[in-house]
Amino acid sequence: MSTPDPSDYSFIKQIPDGDSVERHVCDDCGWIHYVNPKIVVGSVVTYQDKFLLCKRSIHPRKGYWTLPAGYMEEKETSEQGAKREAMEEANADITLTGMLALYNIPHISQVQIMYRAHLEKPDFSAGPESEDVQLFNWDDIPWEDLAFPTVYWALHQFQDIKHLSSFIPFQNADGELLENSFKMLKR
Amino acid sequence: MSTPDPSDYSFIKQIPDGDSVERHVCDDCGWIHYVNPKIVVGSVVTYQDKFLLCKRSIHPRKGYWTLPAGYMEEKETSEQGAKREAMEEANADITLTGMLALYNIPHISQVQIMYRAHLEKPDFSAGPESEDVQLFNWDDIPWEDLAFPTVYWALHQFQDIKHLSSFIPFQNADGELLENSFKMLKR
Repeated sequence: MSTPDPSDYSFIKQIPDGDSVERHVCDDCGWIHYVNPKIVVGSVVTYQDKFLLCKRSIHPRKGYWTLPAGYMEEKETSEQGAKREAMEEANADITLTGMLALYNIPHISQVQIMYRAHLEKPDFSAGPESEDVQLFNWDDIPWEDLAFPTVYWALHQFQDIKHLSSFIPFQNADGELLENSFKMLKR
Repeated sequence: MSTPDPSDYSFIKQIPDGDSVERHVCDDCGWIHYVNPKIVVGSVVTYQDKFLLCKRSIHPRKGYWTLPAGYMEEKETSEQGAKREAMEEANADITLTGMLALYNIPHISQVQIMYRAHLEKPDFSAGPESEDVQLFNWDDIPWEDLAFPTVYWALHQFQDIKHLSSFIPFQNADGELLENSFKMLKR
């Protein structure tokens, strides 16, 4: 799903009555298109020390590997959304075991809520948004072909807490982890 | 800010090409109005064991007491949003010291990200969305006049971790805390 661009329609930018921020308002009917940050929900999913990754069959980053994750939908919890995305993208029935991280990506107005999860059985297959789904040993993860920096962050942060029953969720990577994630995408 | 109701405009409900979920589509121009869960960012703010609360001057729950919190805006982080809301509602310059809780309110498609925060100095005043802003001792908090259950949850969960330098964020209240928060709102 891609979000339509208001500039392709009859929207003008103006501050509605009682508001303090410029919004997109339809010049034909007056509809106010409020835009708020979107939530992505996803998870680092393991089975016996192997990591479940999905090769994207859709843009952006088609052909690159990602975690099962996607936009949270209305009327669901973030946990339900993370489980739904794993089912949609990898036909995988996952068990969540804690919030791994909350990432802020303000330049694209996105908040990502990532969970730690595992498969009880190695049952999975590619859903419609995936070309392929595989379990990788850590050393075999296609690091050069990951779709997004946050995939790199989440996998590494997971490694730091994988033996803990409870832990404080991570935030955006910094320092070396951040630098390495950018290098990884600078091809 | 209130979100307009698509049924007051020329929207029809249909599943767009390549999508799997019914969306509001403008019958005039084809604009697709994607609706995703909204994020509320806020904080439990203290100054010397007192709690900063705001009396709402706007609907819903006008006249009831709440934490400084509101919708996260585009191009900001959740932390920046929590600080902005404290400034807008209470003219308060707050310091954040950890994520207190992540609440899921699926029936209104809302995710609330609450922080622990404090004031360095007791400088605050009512912003345009507040009738009044006050610091309360715990025992003087107007429990019967809180605006939302999540305010009750956040204040009590804060009490459990106030002396800890780091802690695992809370989720939705359950058990007695949940029951008490509903009793509180059943007037």
